[in-house]
Amino acid sequence: MSSYAVGIDLGGTNLKAALVHREDGIVEITQRRTEAEEGPQHVVDRIATLADHMREGAPNGIVGIGIGSPGAINWGRTTVTRPPNLPGWDSLNLANLLQEHLGDVSVIVENDANVAGLGSAFYGAGRSFDSFIMVTLGTGVGGAIIYGNKIFRGSTGGAAEIGHMTIDYEGPYANTGVAGAIEGYLGQAFLSDHARDRLVNYPESLLHDLVDGDLDQLNPRILYEAANEGDEAAERILAWAGHKLGCVLGSAINLLDIRTVVVGGGVSAAGDFILDPAREALPNFVMPGLREDVSIHQEVLGNEVSLLGAARLAFEGREAQV
Amino acid sequence: MSSYAVGIDLGGTNLKAALVHREDGIVEITQRRTEAEEGPQHVVDRIATLADHMREGAPNGIVGIGIGSPGAINWGRTTVTRPPNLPGWDSLNLANLLQEHLGDVSVIVENDANVAGLGSAFYGAGRSFDSFIMVTLGTGVGGAIIYGNKIFRGSTGGAAEIGHMTIDYEGPYANTGVAGAIEGYLGQAFLSDHARDRLVNYPESLLHDLVDGDLDQLNPRILYEAANEGDEAAERILAWAGHKLGCVLGSAINLLDIRTVVVGGGVSAAGDFILDPAREALPNFVMPGLREDVSIHQEVLGNEVSLLGAARLAFEGREAQV
Repeated sequence: MSSYAVGIDLGGTNLKAALVHREDGIVEITQRRTEAEEGPQHVVDRIATLADHMREGAPNGIVGIGIGSPGAINWGRTTVTRPPNLPGWDSLNLANLLQEHLGDVSVIVENDANVAGLGSAFYGAGRSFDSFIMVTLGTGVGGAIIYGNKIFRGSTGGAAEIGHMTIDYEGPYANTGVAGAIEGYLGQAFLSDHARDRLVNYPESLLHDLVDGDLDQLNPRILYEAANEGDEAAERILAWAGHKLGCVLGSAINLLDIRTVVVGGGVSAAGDFILDPAREALPNFVMPGLREDVSIHQEVLGNEVSLLGAARLAFEGREAQV
Repeated sequence: MSSYAVGIDLGGTNLKAALVHREDGIVEITQRRTEAEEGPQHVVDRIATLADHMREGAPNGIVGIGIGSPGAINWGRTTVTRPPNLPGWDSLNLANLLQEHLGDVSVIVENDANVAGLGSAFYGAGRSFDSFIMVTLGTGVGGAIIYGNKIFRGSTGGAAEIGHMTIDYEGPYANTGVAGAIEGYLGQAFLSDHARDRLVNYPESLLHDLVDGDLDQLNPRILYEAANEGDEAAERILAWAGHKLGCVLGSAINLLDIRTVVVGGGVSAAGDFILDPAREALPNFVMPGLREDVSIHQEVLGNEVSLLGAARLAFEGREAQV
């Protein structure tokens, strides 16, 4: 059997593909615009063309194609429903559509956060652990539960929506209408809003300069830059966010008895400015009997973890899920 | 193979045992004092004597003995560590000790909340569902995750500690030191304290009479009695508790994508006075994509669910866990 698979990362803006060797990891990588505004059929054609191109690089064919996609994925892992940022998609059997283009090849579709978790489990920071909770901090807050090196999918494939867990039942509403949902603190827009409002108390902060006085331009990357320069306001804002992360992870650990956490996604680039305060808060939100060995790790593979995880779907096949 | 197993429910006060038929359920039931104050060896002897007595009732032997126990249970399901209410127990291989008394018989030990979940899955309100979250409302707030009719145990066997999940990171401390832990609202002592303090605002409440003016005597059963009589204070207090339950269950559903909840334990006798407000709050704490089909059911089997679940451990053997 071939040692190669193709991994696809379907995003609202960019479409990425990689040819992945089972042991060696990424062999080749390509990125194109998704051109989502042209509608689903156009996007499917682009995915097919890209996947076909990537598999040509494999010396003796591929075992299959794995796709990480936004939106809800059905239990059979073929169909994507209502992915945010992909206009005009209602429910689409991506696996079948691609097989029509590409012939008899295995295609497995999985939620993008779950795919990142699987990639981390086999190639990233999660490699040292059989089971861990993956949190992705980006535009939103996503997650995956890796249990015995498999994806825990829940009843319908929708598990690990950590971003919507509450830490304050009377807290601010996130854009899903859940009061105190962690995404309402750590989602990119929410964190930036919080920073902007809080900066009224820090007229001397470097952050004012970094955005040329236009605080609407604030984002987590700029917060990280400023914190790296020793800016107190930026450090405090990121610490505030990290503390909240620790609170919600405590609840997740109590429920799952999975005590290892891997944090990825763009906002996680802020690294220990967020993660150290999370590490400090975490044990206080875990029952004493489960506090031993809790740990939070940063995923350092970046976007590659999604492509590796997507390819891993193909390598693992039906074994990839609990 | 025999269709019978013995289920044991080991509590701090009482020791219960049942002979259970795989399809027909409980055939015979016995309850004795645990006499925990006499120390572990004495308790082990009592369990052995009781189990031996129960298995004599089986026409062609038993497939094994299952035990629901407080405390942490090891991954191999043989050993109990530091069970609350059982003084002098540190770590005890209950399975081996019983086999020394009883000869070559399969003995499986599992956490009591998990055992209640398994009992519900096969004989109780959980029978209609492959997967559900079990919450037990009693002295504390316990839980179990039943996934595909198996117990989800987490990394070390300690999963489903719902009682310690927070709903308010700046909320009151429960006795595990977790701020806003749901046990700090719904645990029997916490709920009774809340009721006592709140009754200052309800001088006319029936509750004052029901405890002869001694509000330290309040407990959830009395709250239920008063609510049943139409007492407004009691109804509001139970509704307050139910609302909190709905909040934490929302977080659990977001994480697990298991949308069915079964509530058991003594406090659950308050039934819809708690569960209706929980049902009302719940969807607001679940992300929109997972709200469909969320439901909360009351376990009506009472304590029998634990004995049935313990016996089921023996029937299922290694198949009983994810």
